[in-house]
Amino acid sequence: MTSAVIPEAHHDLVDLPHVGVLSTLGSDGRPQSTAVWFVRDGSEIRTSLLTTRQKYKNMAAHPKATLFVLDPTNPFRTIEIRGDVSFEIDPGGELFERVVRHYGQDPDTFPGPKDGRMVLTLHPKRVVTNG
Amino acid sequence: MTSAVIPEAHHDLVDLPHVGVLSTLGSDGRPQSTAVWFVRDGSEIRTSLLTTRQKYKNMAAHPKATLFVLDPTNPFRTIEIRGDVSFEIDPGGELFERVVRHYGQDPDTFPGPKDGRMVLTLHPKRVVTNG
Repeated sequence: MTSAVIPEAHHDLVDLPHVGVLSTLGSDGRPQSTAVWFVRDGSEIRTSLLTTRQKYKNMAAHPKATLFVLDPTNPFRTIEIRGDVSFEIDPGGELFERVVRHYGQDPDTFPGPKDGRMVLTLHPKRVVTNG
Repeated sequence: MTSAVIPEAHHDLVDLPHVGVLSTLGSDGRPQSTAVWFVRDGSEIRTSLLTTRQKYKNMAAHPKATLFVLDPTNPFRTIEIRGDVSFEIDPGGELFERVVRHYGQDPDTFPGPKDGRMVLTLHPKRVVTNG
């Protein structure tokens, strides 16, 4: 099924704390993929990222990305969210803390820098679901 | 860790029948991701695909792709294989049957067309492992 919104029948794939695969485009023209934690905000997907990361540099140069989530209990059930991205500074690390908590971790003890973080918002333009 | 080959310490991620995420570049400039079954042949990754699929069309136009595999028992352990792709006709569906068997299925009863299949070979150019 293809749409421009995240269909309700597949909300669980983005609402439960599944690890997603975020793909961006590298300067060499190759897709680059990394594992990401994320949260859904209505029709959008948000994740926290450091500006030192390659994926941030890729999206700053080419503001498009795709999030893919596989149902761990049924590999034929998937969601692919292709979209445009925008960034905002996350000065207090609020989104970072929210994401960490969503994945059952304590932001106070979770390793990884809290400073220099951006909120990445993925605005879905095409959503493909299977299963 | 970054290299141009698949490191032995992460061979299990590509040798066990894990579902991978294959990302290609669409004509709209957005990465496109799909779940794939695949096998390793020495230093290369092979998968079977139909020429009617969007991912085939994407790679025919832009012969680069990235395979990402997440360890289902440890989401911090991942492998990302970025590479160039090449295609060969798979007239007898041999690679298709091999892939289907590798994932514990019987090619004789597995749904999905056996004709019109190509062998996609991913030639790793940059491999990034975590965990």
